Amino acid sequence: MVIVIQCKDKVGLVAEISKVLANFKLNIISMREFVDTLGNEFFARLEVTTFDDVDSLQKALKGVLPNNASVKVNPNPNKKVILLVTKEHHCLSDILVRNHYQTLGASLQCVIGNHPDLKDLCDRFDVPFHYVPHQDKTKEQFENELKSIIENNELDYLILAKFMRILSPAFIGCFPNQIINIHHSFLPAFIGASPYKQAFERGVKLIGATAHFVTNQLDEGPIITQQTITVNHTFGTKDMVKAGKEIESAVLSKAIQAVFEDRVFVFDNKTVVFD
Amino acid sequence: MVIVIQCKDKVGLVAEISKVLANFKLNIISMREFVDTLGNEFFARLEVTTFDDVDSLQKALKGVLPNNASVKVNPNPNKKVILLVTKEHHCLSDILVRNHYQTLGASLQCVIGNHPDLKDLCDRFDVPFHYVPHQDKTKEQFENELKSIIENNELDYLILAKFMRILSPAFIGCFPNQIINIHHSFLPAFIGASPYKQAFERGVKLIGATAHFVTNQLDEGPIITQQTITVNHTFGTKDMVKAGKEIESAVLSKAIQAVFEDRVFVFDNKTVVFD
Amino acid sequence: MVIVIQCKDKVGLVAEISKVLANFKLNIISMREFVDTLGNEFFARLEVTTFDDVDSLQKALKGVLPNNASVKVNPNPNKKVILLVTKEHHCLSDILVRNHYQTLGASLQCVIGNHPDLKDLCDRFDVPFHYVPHQDKTKEQFENELKSIIENNELDYLILAKFMRILSPAFIGCFPNQIINIHHSFLPAFIGASPYKQAFERGVKLIGATAHFVTNQLDEGPIITQQTITVNHTFGTKDMVKAGKEIESAVLSKAIQAVFEDRVFVFDNKTVVFD
Amino acid sequence: MVIVIQCKDKVGLVAEISKVLANFKLNIISMREFVDTLGNEFFARLEVTTFDDVDSLQKALKGVLPNNASVKVNPNPNKKVILLVTKEHHCLSDILVRNHYQTLGASLQCVIGNHPDLKDLCDRFDVPFHYVPHQDKTKEQFENELKSIIENNELDYLILAKFMRILSPAFIGCFPNQIINIHHSFLPAFIGASPYKQAFERGVKLIGATAHFVTNQLDEGPIITQQTITVNHTFGTKDMVKAGKEIESAVLSKAIQAVFEDRVFVFDNKTVVFD
Repeated sequence: MVIVIQCKDKVGLVAEISKVLANFKLNIISMREFVDTLGNEFFARLEVTTFDDVDSLQKALKGVLPNNASVKVNPNPNKKVILLVTKEHHCLSDILVRNHYQTLGASLQCVIGNHPDLKDLCDRFDVPFHYVPHQDKTKEQFENELKSIIENNELDYLILAKFMRILSPAFIGCFPNQIINIHHSFLPAFIGASPYKQAFERGVKLIGATAHFVTNQLDEGPIITQQTITVNHTFGTKDMVKAGKEIESAVLSKAIQAVFEDRVFVFDNKTVVFD
Repeated sequence: MVIVIQCKDKVGLVAEISKVLANFKLNIISMREFVDTLGNEFFARLEVTTFDDVDSLQKALKGVLPNNASVKVNPNPNKKVILLVTKEHHCLSDILVRNHYQTLGASLQCVIGNHPDLKDLCDRFDVPFHYVPHQDKTKEQFENELKSIIENNELDYLILAKFMRILSPAFIGCFPNQIINIHHSFLPAFIGASPYKQAFERGVKLIGATAHFVTNQLDEGPIITQQTITVNHTFGTKDMVKAGKEIESAVLSKAIQAVFEDRVFVFDNKTVVFD
Repeated sequence: MVIVIQCKDKVGLVAEISKVLANFKLNIISMREFVDTLGNEFFARLEVTTFDDVDSLQKALKGVLPNNASVKVNPNPNKKVILLVTKEHHCLSDILVRNHYQTLGASLQCVIGNHPDLKDLCDRFDVPFHYVPHQDKTKEQFENELKSIIENNELDYLILAKFMRILSPAFIGCFPNQIINIHHSFLPAFIGASPYKQAFERGVKLIGATAHFVTNQLDEGPIITQQTITVNHTFGTKDMVKAGKEIESAVLSKAIQAVFEDRVFVFDNKTVVFD
Repeated sequence: MVIVIQCKDKVGLVAEISKVLANFKLNIISMREFVDTLGNEFFARLEVTTFDDVDSLQKALKGVLPNNASVKVNPNPNKKVILLVTKEHHCLSDILVRNHYQTLGASLQCVIGNHPDLKDLCDRFDVPFHYVPHQDKTKEQFENELKSIIENNELDYLILAKFMRILSPAFIGCFPNQIINIHHSFLPAFIGASPYKQAFERGVKLIGATAHFVTNQLDEGPIITQQTITVNHTFGTKDMVKAGKEIESAVLSKAIQAVFEDRVFVFDNKTVVFD
């Protein structure tokens, strides 16, 4: 059973927490703790022996922690996710397969596409696909349609699996630290459109991908996971796009797995990841 | 200040430990804990605020831990090391430079070579070099000479930095979990002599290096760090040797840094590394 | 258009080959050449401007090359492949998706499983699945059933995508350099069964995967591609299996892509890969 | 013996080149060829059997190549290099050791520092160190002093091994494609000063290093080699600096080795690297 805690730091926090756990006769199998000393913020993730009375434990922990502490005892182990997609299938297909074989660590509720291209793939895995075109609509209208679909589902996380529209601050504000995007470069290099074209023109020897939480600043949100792979002079832009797809789905998969396992904390536009 | 603890596991250990720390008004800046559930062994490494009365703290911790617990409060931050070498310079030179600029995390006491080749390099960095040839001696005589030099120095760790003699169980038994070797393959592949020749003949596409503690079983001791790099059909044995040197010194450097920072625990022929 | 050549080496081969190409007014866009000087074998892969009269060109090249030279001008760019599987889906699903979106670089003819588990997945992508149980049959009977299905299809390569039966020398002999296997370790470490269990028990800090051509020696055939990823003390055997699946499908995918693009040559139980 | 050729592309170039080699009875052991089809530029690197009459061969090759072709037959296998440094020792010490053991692939002529700190290290390896402070001088005066030292030596390449002054276009113009710099980020991320501070503030999960030729655009020259390593939330700026040093010296070492082996071509602000 997992317990995650985030709060202001003070002396003796671990002692207080572990005393509570000992009182409940829980054994700590694995523990990760970190203090951001600049921001005076405390983060902990514990794996403890299973226990039924989650509410009492949560209350007891709250009692020894600073005000406004975030405490989650046995956070939903079956998180609900919705995907936003456009035309590219590689991240979606990876997630569909994992969802199908129940190795995603979450349940895919539905997929929303602003193009109809990926409906066929979702159909093959019996996952509902909602086609919401953006043409001839204001951003507000478009996003209201997205929201009404989302509201008809349970939602823990919204995953932009190569979704090629920029969302408004109003929309993003409805889902704080709940929207995860895969960007096709090793940020902060090549922010914005056509990163592979930029990479080709610069003649880089590495390309990469970045999974991050979405904030109002384009491609500036807290980074969860990044990876790079080597390229060389024989790679044209198309070759980089092709090679990049491999790493995009791998990086997104790794990032969301960490999030679904409650290993990722957000603080001050950065993440703490206990991997 | 670092505290490392290894002992049999039981419920409430973290609570007991952290209560002691809170009583001493110490704040836990960072904590890593792990339980080997198969072996029922508990491992913890804590970074806490600095504190002078180390002995009282150590005694208080011992008091709450199971018998035979290993507890080190502020373990020697200036560990003493001796290197054994033969002819190859790449691991030695890396360590000599770090020692010279005090970034090794330890103090190099001296270097012992069974060939005289590397004396010049040690001289250049004002590090004592002892030439102990192995020819025309029994292994026991040779090792007794090594031991008498070692005994004239302080020693925390003995590092085999491409030392090409096999040490006897009797010698190894004098330095339990204190001898670190760099083996030029990704163990358990290519145990024993000429791993690059074996790798060339097998046509592998990766070569690697392994840093491990030395036990009586050749190349079978607890592994600390391993890395691989890619090779291809153009690599002859010599090219593999050359490429391998780069990774050997990198792996050894990474492994001993973890050991010097008290991040490495040995249990049941394996290591726990809190990196 | 691709041209691949393998033959005994002699002085002037590139001159002869490129003279032929110049006579046909073909421009060499990219060329890779390698001579295995120990084995006196010549390998070349050329990308040249497109040309229709493939037969004349092939004949002209044959005319300037040593006897028994292997020359392929514009080798089948749409190779036909059949997969053998057992129960694990991760390599199969990766290949099914690529085949579906025509990014595999080959055409998947059908899938044969010795268990029925993966029929559902193949059905979802409209790829024929043949269930051929091995129980209550001699190996010869079982393999004859495989062969009769294979013979009803076109075949360039047979891919063992986590196929958990050992094939007989007689069967393997029917498909020389045409059978590709993914082994779940960085060979030659952990040959044979349960490599992750072996890896866990040894306490390695890396696990890997190897794609190789299948020969009569178990896990001893020419290696095409290998990769490793890091693991640590928190990984039990199951965690290694899970982490390994990610790298297995990545390595197999990379290897077969190189094979399908005619970048891989086999010689003397090794491969030359022009990547 | 190595031959490198760079020129405008045309049909039949390889045929012409290889005919010349065959006429001289030279066997091609290994050949890499690449055409930049956008820029219509031809690049080739050949390893051929050894041959004494280099001038005749060079002349014969010139005769069959387009005007202005660059042809180097057996380019200086003992290249002369000078290092510019400031205070950090890690790249310098790596190069000093390789130079000392003659595995650098070049001869280090001398080291020039704008601070005196690294004189001691150069003295230990008997390599001349010139202290040229930049204080109280115009950039022109400072660079004239550098130039007068350089002119007293032979020079193929000038290596900026953590040299922390920006050179003027006039100075750079004197050494076209001869100045190699190591930049402590994965360009184009974090151009300019304090890249690790920028990286820490952005919360990246990767840091990197880039070796590139120096042009008049700061950190914008042709990239030779790049690598990244992972970092996490526990890394402060100082930890990133420390981790970065490891990769900086590795990347610089790899880049200059490729340059010294005549594997690197510059064209259109990019490089072709036949590695």
